[in-house]
Amino acid sequence: MRKFFLLVLLATRPTAAEDSSLVAYPSGYRQWIHVKSMHIRPGHPLHHLFGGVHHIYANKQAREGYRRGKFGNGATLVLDLLDARDDGFAVTEGPRRMVAVMHKDSKKYPQTGGWGFEAWRADNRKDRMVGTTAAAQCFECHAQRKKNDFVFSSYRP
Amino acid sequence: MRKFFLLVLLATRPTAAEDSSLVAYPSGYRQWIHVKSMHIRPGHPLHHLFGGVHHIYANKQAREGYRRGKFGNGATLVLDLLDARDDGFAVTEGPRRMVAVMHKDSKKYPQTGGWGFEAWRADNRKDRMVGTTAAAQCFECHAQRKKNDFVFSSYRP
Repeated sequence: MRKFFLLVLLATRPTAAEDSSLVAYPSGYRQWIHVKSMHIRPGHPLHHLFGGVHHIYANKQAREGYRRGKFGNGATLVLDLLDARDDGFAVTEGPRRMVAVMHKDSKKYPQTGGWGFEAWRADNRKDRMVGTTAAAQCFECHAQRKKNDFVFSSYRP
Repeated sequence: MRKFFLLVLLATRPTAAEDSSLVAYPSGYRQWIHVKSMHIRPGHPLHHLFGGVHHIYANKQAREGYRRGKFGNGATLVLDLLDARDDGFAVTEGPRRMVAVMHKDSKKYPQTGGWGFEAWRADNRKDRMVGTTAAAQCFECHAQRKKNDFVFSSYRP
């Protein structure tokens, strides 16, 4: 009986993917508005993290946040990182390298400016690259943007 | 009386901007979905026309067109061309250079695959770069894409 109880406990324990403090995958973000883009090349100080072409996408709440300079709960930003294929004459987009997300929920993430951070490798929605290490992996850098509600990008008209 | 009549005729004659065969400026296209992007550098055969970073945007009808491989009337695609600022380590977006449009209307544009073409210089909505010369300026190149309904881009998932 005791053994059975333990098994039930193990089976119902939330896995990392179900942990409610983790940021959810931003399904449908390719239909959100496109904020701006950038191509980070070898030699750039952030190349090891964000090397390639990236596009920033914003959901409706985040779009409003760019206007106000302050993002409300529910605002979500995606950095969609793709391989950059450069033949010397043109740079085109290769396969996806990472989907990185900032999701505003001031109650859940008071330690990191009200933002939850996560990143998924390539198109694999289960391969989380941040998990519970957002403070060190993401916020250490974003903290410098306090005046902009910790967001680096601004909306390109 | 005759002079008055002539003045009335001149005053009511449609200007180029009012000509119904001309493609309308795609107001609000920055809120449409982002299809894909590319950076055309010096030395590329299309650099004189499309040098810089460009993003392709699609309205709802065009989004459906990418799925079907055939675009219905009303489908509109925008090529948003920006200056590319390259410091050797990163390429960022500079000012807008051109807003180029393909608008599907098979009745209006039977000579050019059912597509109307136009381009505006930078952010100036009155400075048309194509006007009535779409057949030579645009379609000569797009014609090679007949199998894809004369569209070069495909939607990047």
